[in-house]
Amino acid sequence: MSYPEKFQGIAVVEREDWLNPKKVSYDPKTFGEQDIDIEIMACGVCGSDTHTAASRWGPCPNSQVVGHEIIGKVVKIGSKCEDGLKIGQRVGVGAQVFSCLECQRCKNNNEQYCTNFVTTYTGIYPNGYIAQGGYASHIRVHEHFVIPIPDEIPTELAAPLMCGGATVFTPLLRNGCGPNKKVGIIGIGGIGHMGILLAKAMGAEVYAFSRGENKRADAMDLGADHYYATGTEGWDKDLFNTLDLAVICASSLTDINLDQYIKIMKIGGSIQSISVPDVTEKLTLRPFQLVGITIGNSLIGTPQDIKTMLDIVVKNNVKIWIEKVPVGEKGVHEAWSRLEKGDVRYRFVLTDFEKEFGSEK
Amino acid sequence: MSYPEKFQGIAVVEREDWLNPKKVSYDPKTFGEQDIDIEIMACGVCGSDTHTAASRWGPCPNSQVVGHEIIGKVVKIGSKCEDGLKIGQRVGVGAQVFSCLECQRCKNNNEQYCTNFVTTYTGIYPNGYIAQGGYASHIRVHEHFVIPIPDEIPTELAAPLMCGGATVFTPLLRNGCGPNKKVGIIGIGGIGHMGILLAKAMGAEVYAFSRGENKRADAMDLGADHYYATGTEGWDKDLFNTLDLAVICASSLTDINLDQYIKIMKIGGSIQSISVPDVTEKLTLRPFQLVGITIGNSLIGTPQDIKTMLDIVVKNNVKIWIEKVPVGEKGVHEAWSRLEKGDVRYRFVLTDFEKEFGSEK
Repeated sequence: MSYPEKFQGIAVVEREDWLNPKKVSYDPKTFGEQDIDIEIMACGVCGSDTHTAASRWGPCPNSQVVGHEIIGKVVKIGSKCEDGLKIGQRVGVGAQVFSCLECQRCKNNNEQYCTNFVTTYTGIYPNGYIAQGGYASHIRVHEHFVIPIPDEIPTELAAPLMCGGATVFTPLLRNGCGPNKKVGIIGIGGIGHMGILLAKAMGAEVYAFSRGENKRADAMDLGADHYYATGTEGWDKDLFNTLDLAVICASSLTDINLDQYIKIMKIGGSIQSISVPDVTEKLTLRPFQLVGITIGNSLIGTPQDIKTMLDIVVKNNVKIWIEKVPVGEKGVHEAWSRLEKGDVRYRFVLTDFEKEFGSEK
Repeated sequence: MSYPEKFQGIAVVEREDWLNPKKVSYDPKTFGEQDIDIEIMACGVCGSDTHTAASRWGPCPNSQVVGHEIIGKVVKIGSKCEDGLKIGQRVGVGAQVFSCLECQRCKNNNEQYCTNFVTTYTGIYPNGYIAQGGYASHIRVHEHFVIPIPDEIPTELAAPLMCGGATVFTPLLRNGCGPNKKVGIIGIGGIGHMGILLAKAMGAEVYAFSRGENKRADAMDLGADHYYATGTEGWDKDLFNTLDLAVICASSLTDINLDQYIKIMKIGGSIQSISVPDVTEKLTLRPFQLVGITIGNSLIGTPQDIKTMLDIVVKNNVKIWIEKVPVGEKGVHEAWSRLEKGDVRYRFVLTDFEKEFGSEK
């Protein structure tokens, strides 16, 4: 049995052997009147995928399919859909697939902070169904969280924008990144590299920060105006009162020496983290250090934020750096194994979905 | 010997007996070409005064005169003054008496974050002179930090605005307090009561928070629209996602249950503290809680901020609540002793300076 009764995906079947996921078949959630079915064409590999698969954010559910940087084409449209999506249209899905759409947060372009937020995988729908992600043949999603992809952006380059791109773009957008602003991107990995590209496209002067010298050449090629190796003693000595905004793209706030970053911020500036640390992780600050600047944590981006980002990507011809890996048990194993070692420039994108899962065309 | 050779003040002479300060005579700092001499008429009693006098922020210097909510009249003007102050004009001085006036921070209305900041008392001038405060006959200050006081504001009601008022006003001003904004004032003491008055004058809907019920009536009389006794279980249950801005007016951030206040903030909102905790005080946050909001610490206000505040005070006929106490050894002892017990509604102002110190008229 296959689509529309069953979806296929590459899932964590045995928790202890998470690095060797298996191909599985599973029931999709019940089709809702405002749902869209998408046949998947590509899916980015996000750090969240391995965190989840490795049970670092709690035990990974049984036969869990991860992946939330999804590009595909519309193959089914619910009878009450109102957003004008067409069969065959190329669309994207990020890290969120549901929210109430009625609360003040949802109505004010803050769906990611809705208390009924359902994440694209491991998220639990109101009826108890556990969401399955994008390393799969299809995904079924409420139309509100389905984003049209402009023709100008290739499928593989669009995928990582859906979560990683949106996650770094949103705090840039909401904290004034633009011309005449000095913006720091701290941590040059999958998300950080998109941060450099997007901040530059938004018109900012971009300061890239990474521990060692090994990212310098790439950061400058990506468009950074300045690079600082923060493992070097005294790296911050000429940077006092420099940045208007800094986005921490490291996986944990507590790994960061905030004392130093606070000093290099301008008064009125903001340090935004996009990390999703363990809920028990503690951040220790001396309140007196925080004088004149603010600190906050930003969570993914909304459909509206993603659309704004895609406009900027098209207008500025932003091209993120990816490595393609064919989807499947072998491909996912390879991507995850290399990601665990930090061996990626700068984002894996799973491709060849038609070959692995067939097509309903 | 008296003015201009010597100033007189009420000083902490014996650290162990700080609650019984003594009248002393002392050398003013050398008169600079841009200095103004002010004959003092009133001085507010700030929590910083007792913290300093009691050596809670480090050992109190010998024969230290405190006080940084100063109103007086100009009695001498330096030969290179350019700000147009006149002899006899009524002016104020707040918690800052010097900064470099040349750095980017000083040039951008952020003098309070200049690295050459000199506080009104205990501050050390570049030449080593330790600044003496406003429980005194006179003060000598660079004209940049001398604020003209509008005729409409009585001397005693103007004094506490110079530090306490400016300290709560500045984070309100810089974080969007105004019409259609819901603003929390957390901690209803000397500064918090001014926070309610000023936030209301700026057009916000004001939410007052204090531990018990004992401040409810006063908070509502001051103009608060809502009052919550945070010592009561479940006080926050209807406040999820409510406030645009909250200013913590308590003396320490670590005394505050930030978990609860984070929940009642709107996405994009900011929690600003005005506390000056011990530099070793630690604030522990779970980064994951901070999603969508920011937190920061704001330090006093600049001369420009204070002028903006005084305009609002005049236009809205804001009247703070004070208790007058005659300056002198006895009066300062009384004010400090009662302040230590929290027995003040809501700010002490020292008066009768001419009686205590005479006049140069």
